Amino acid sequence: MSLTRRLTAEGIGSLLLAAAVVGSGVMAERLAAGNAALALLANTLATVAALAVLIALFAPVSEAHFNPAVSLVQAVRGSLSWRDAGAYAAAQILGCCLGAILAHAMFGLTWLQSSAHVRTGPGQWLAEAVATFGLVLVILGLPRPRDAAWMIAGWIGAAYWFSASTSFANPAITIARSLSDTFSGIRRADVPGFIIAQLAGALLALMVARALFRIDTLEQRR
Amino acid sequence: MSLTRRLTAEGIGSLLLAAAVVGSGVMAERLAAGNAALALLANTLATVAALAVLIALFAPVSEAHFNPAVSLVQAVRGSLSWRDAGAYAAAQILGCCLGAILAHAMFGLTWLQSSAHVRTGPGQWLAEAVATFGLVLVILGLPRPRDAAWMIAGWIGAAYWFSASTSFANPAITIARSLSDTFSGIRRADVPGFIIAQLAGALLALMVARALFRIDTLEQRR
Amino acid sequence: MSLTRRLTAEGIGSLLLAAAVVGSGVMAERLAAGNAALALLANTLATVAALAVLIALFAPVSEAHFNPAVSLVQAVRGSLSWRDAGAYAAAQILGCCLGAILAHAMFGLTWLQSSAHVRTGPGQWLAEAVATFGLVLVILGLPRPRDAAWMIAGWIGAAYWFSASTSFANPAITIARSLSDTFSGIRRADVPGFIIAQLAGALLALMVARALFRIDTLEQRR
Amino acid sequence: MSLTRRLTAEGIGSLLLAAAVVGSGVMAERLAAGNAALALLANTLATVAALAVLIALFAPVSEAHFNPAVSLVQAVRGSLSWRDAGAYAAAQILGCCLGAILAHAMFGLTWLQSSAHVRTGPGQWLAEAVATFGLVLVILGLPRPRDAAWMIAGWIGAAYWFSASTSFANPAITIARSLSDTFSGIRRADVPGFIIAQLAGALLALMVARALFRIDTLEQRR
Repeated sequence: MSLTRRLTAEGIGSLLLAAAVVGSGVMAERLAAGNAALALLANTLATVAALAVLIALFAPVSEAHFNPAVSLVQAVRGSLSWRDAGAYAAAQILGCCLGAILAHAMFGLTWLQSSAHVRTGPGQWLAEAVATFGLVLVILGLPRPRDAAWMIAGWIGAAYWFSASTSFANPAITIARSLSDTFSGIRRADVPGFIIAQLAGALLALMVARALFRIDTLEQRR
Repeated sequence: MSLTRRLTAEGIGSLLLAAAVVGSGVMAERLAAGNAALALLANTLATVAALAVLIALFAPVSEAHFNPAVSLVQAVRGSLSWRDAGAYAAAQILGCCLGAILAHAMFGLTWLQSSAHVRTGPGQWLAEAVATFGLVLVILGLPRPRDAAWMIAGWIGAAYWFSASTSFANPAITIARSLSDTFSGIRRADVPGFIIAQLAGALLALMVARALFRIDTLEQRR
Repeated sequence: MSLTRRLTAEGIGSLLLAAAVVGSGVMAERLAAGNAALALLANTLATVAALAVLIALFAPVSEAHFNPAVSLVQAVRGSLSWRDAGAYAAAQILGCCLGAILAHAMFGLTWLQSSAHVRTGPGQWLAEAVATFGLVLVILGLPRPRDAAWMIAGWIGAAYWFSASTSFANPAITIARSLSDTFSGIRRADVPGFIIAQLAGALLALMVARALFRIDTLEQRR
Repeated sequence: MSLTRRLTAEGIGSLLLAAAVVGSGVMAERLAAGNAALALLANTLATVAALAVLIALFAPVSEAHFNPAVSLVQAVRGSLSWRDAGAYAAAQILGCCLGAILAHAMFGLTWLQSSAHVRTGPGQWLAEAVATFGLVLVILGLPRPRDAAWMIAGWIGAAYWFSASTSFANPAITIARSLSDTFSGIRRADVPGFIIAQLAGALLALMVARALFRIDTLEQRR
């Protein structure tokens, strides 16, 4: 696969994923009459379904990362060149930001916003590390993304609820959500803390996966 | 497969799909005590389950389009003759309209209604284009509909929430929903805008799928 | 497989299915603070999950009917002897009734009850016929029950919402639910109307499946 | 697989499972504005998704029991040595307790708590026996855990609603939940009753599975 095609897949997938996350948050908050559990439930189900579909759709082209933390891990373990990983991350961040803008356009909101949603503190950082740890463990332990699409998305859905941060688990989505002053937003100042925690969780998962799954052997068997 | 059998499958599938969409909307609104998020959640889950089942059931007979936008795309790319595509669309529209009537009959409502639900404006049209774009991309990228049934239905479920229009994404369903003055209805005057947006999204998806998935190669490998 | 083993499977499966349907209805109504949509949503998800699991579990032993309408159809088409079908129906009815009693015992309710829940009228009968028609069509069209477990259960879940009767679609469950004066109950006097509609829908599905799927050919290919 | 690796898998899986159960209970109760049905629904979906993912992830390493009742049954039938079963149970209990603590840490709560949630009485014990009976029957009847992950998790999700006890069905999780004075907690004094009922249900399931599925034959065919 040419890099251009893979980057297009990463970009379109990230765009649609972010539009689904942000858009379903807007719809859910509008309809939920103030009940935050109901809003998060709808936001969760929409995110899970969109993520599973997009992974299944784009996995044969680009492995369907949509997530710089995943591309970083694949670069560290040698499955993706560092140059490609950088290009992946750029496409993911650009796609996610355009996706947030697309969601705003669909719902008739100001296209570019700045979130006021405070998300910070050790509990939330720990939660981001745990959520991303689990995500990367699943991706490394179930190495055919098309078959594992519902599993990967299911983990994110569970983590929306069990992690205190509602599981962003993705630096590109985190940046995009800082551009949306809606249900799923995050204050720009809180973005770095989330991203650091996510990368820490991702790298920890790589260490555990190497010990537990012998992923390098798996790799060769594929 | 004879055209008669394929059209029967498209007709029955479209009928049951529209009955599920309209009927679950009626039930959901009746029970939800005014909470629109809860009503849309029930409507979404019923739609997703019915759509997945009907795709799996009828795919071996007719490819389970139930959707003139999908049949149009298959005609444009040469997978379906233009004559068959026209017949498919007629069966789908007839089936969906009968399905709306069946839902009304089950719930003891006037059989033929005219919706007063306003759904218009650039945001909603953009949303319909995005939802149908994704739907057709999934159908072209995951070309065995029986295996992809939960993925195709999952996309629709996600789009019920992330698109400002609650994702009709289907001209036949759109026409049928204009015959129902219930939760899932759409004003007759708003139907053309939705259909134009849906067809635009579908054709854009065909262009992207050709570039990204090399679907014509996939076709031959099947 | 010996008939005894198959009947044990039908009996235990029917028991657990009815316990899940009735029990989750009790729990849902207790917790839902009067919101019927929320109660039915929980009742739906529990039913779908239990049904899918029980089908997957018992299909290799008894084909996992748990439903006299399904056993009748299999007898009519010659896949099950009439004597076995009668024994299946008896085991299913006995199992479902014991399951309702088990649910009552778990929730500390009177073991044997008589439902006062009125469910009657042409709309509800039509709904039962449609729901059972679809169920039998799915079972005949997707003939390996273990693989089709989520599809079969998904149809029932959708029909809980789109049919005005909340889709009993099963004479044995209908009889058992008449023994429970809880969320999922049905007045004894309304049982015959439901069962007649269910059997009519089931036999119609057999006719359609024969025309559409050539199920007798499928049968031989298995 | 070395015992160390298997125990690590059981420990990490149990930790993440308990964190998901307890954490999603905290989040659900915080957001649900007093509606217990909504809180349990979110808690159920998060538990089901996390459990399915963790089973799929760790099954190739340790068979993914995460549950002393399951390890006991495997020891009784000779699939696991008694020494390994004891070590499994210790890793599961330790992992689950650490998972509860992790959930508390993520949500900024006191790390070690003592639950005041009363859960006792014959109805609840019967419910625990039924829930665990079904769980073990599913595990023995569908013997490849990675393929059966959604089925096993689906049973637990259904049982959250149809069993009067909300289906703990796992001694290790029961002990861990006694350390959490939150939505999913259980009073320490009520733990033994639950565990006895769970083990009784598990052993009954082994007897039924031996008669019904000829699981020892299945075992050899694997």
